[in-house]
Amino acid sequence: MAKKKKGLVVVNTGNGKGKTTAALGVVFRAWGRGMRVRVFQFLKHTGSRFGESRAAEKLGIPWSALGDGFTWLSKDLERTAALAREQWEHVQAAIRDDEHDVIVLDEFTYPLHYGWIPVEDVLAVLRDKPHMLHVVITGRNAPEALVEFADLVTEMREVKHPYKEQGIGAQPGLEF
Amino acid sequence: MAKKKKGLVVVNTGNGKGKTTAALGVVFRAWGRGMRVRVFQFLKHTGSRFGESRAAEKLGIPWSALGDGFTWLSKDLERTAALAREQWEHVQAAIRDDEHDVIVLDEFTYPLHYGWIPVEDVLAVLRDKPHMLHVVITGRNAPEALVEFADLVTEMREVKHPYKEQGIGAQPGLEF
Repeated sequence: MAKKKKGLVVVNTGNGKGKTTAALGVVFRAWGRGMRVRVFQFLKHTGSRFGESRAAEKLGIPWSALGDGFTWLSKDLERTAALAREQWEHVQAAIRDDEHDVIVLDEFTYPLHYGWIPVEDVLAVLRDKPHMLHVVITGRNAPEALVEFADLVTEMREVKHPYKEQGIGAQPGLEF
Repeated sequence: MAKKKKGLVVVNTGNGKGKTTAALGVVFRAWGRGMRVRVFQFLKHTGSRFGESRAAEKLGIPWSALGDGFTWLSKDLERTAALAREQWEHVQAAIRDDEHDVIVLDEFTYPLHYGWIPVEDVLAVLRDKPHMLHVVITGRNAPEALVEFADLVTEMREVKHPYKEQGIGAQPGLEF
């Protein structure tokens, strides 16, 4: 079978670790090849300073987090949803501009899962994306229709987790 | 429960994508925090030039691949095994030196799975590692005793894979 070349839609989902982390690995690799990479984070606090955003800043990789740090305890979900929709507008503009080789949409499954952004709108945009653009989407509970549509889907399955089993906190560098 | 701080032994295993990629994400994050990172690759050809090794070179992250590009079709397994054991000597020296915060052992499960390096030797070294050092191990078929010993284990499970389903080749930047 002849090998086709095309930009892939990649989904990293599941309850285990490594969804965002593997997306960052793609950023690292693609940057190593001189590809044009851009990262959009959903939900995480606007301007959060994690290891990954620090690295991106040092490397000049455009990175934007737009959110209010949504958690299961958030009260103002309307605001969370509005920020996610605003971020999605930025993503659409970036896809249309066709100036990148890889675009990462981190934690993007949540606004889809909660119905803040209609999955069919997202699929319409992905269907029309530049042919060679790779889009990497992370987060739990990836909607079935997105999994259906995506080219490469991996479920990160938790086998063992130190928080729960040993009372170990999240480790800087390793997990954020 | 009080949060303890310690370097973790992390294993990314399973048949899906994202095992090495998530380890690279840790490299990216940890580098972003100014941590001292080092990568050892097993089996891959000595001096292979992938996106990740190019990125590491640009960033000054010490990276060493020692191997002969082992595949299921390799004929000279004695040589493959000898190179893996030689690389393991370098790893032990690096762990003893205690000059790093994160050490990645990429595709390290294979020499263990094939019995080229005894699992109990590896566990003895990991048991005595510097307290705050994180060690990230990737590859399929992680031996049960390693999973038992590790702090954080994730299985990357293949849900959908473009090679098989659409005849798409591995994509530079995304997968190597």
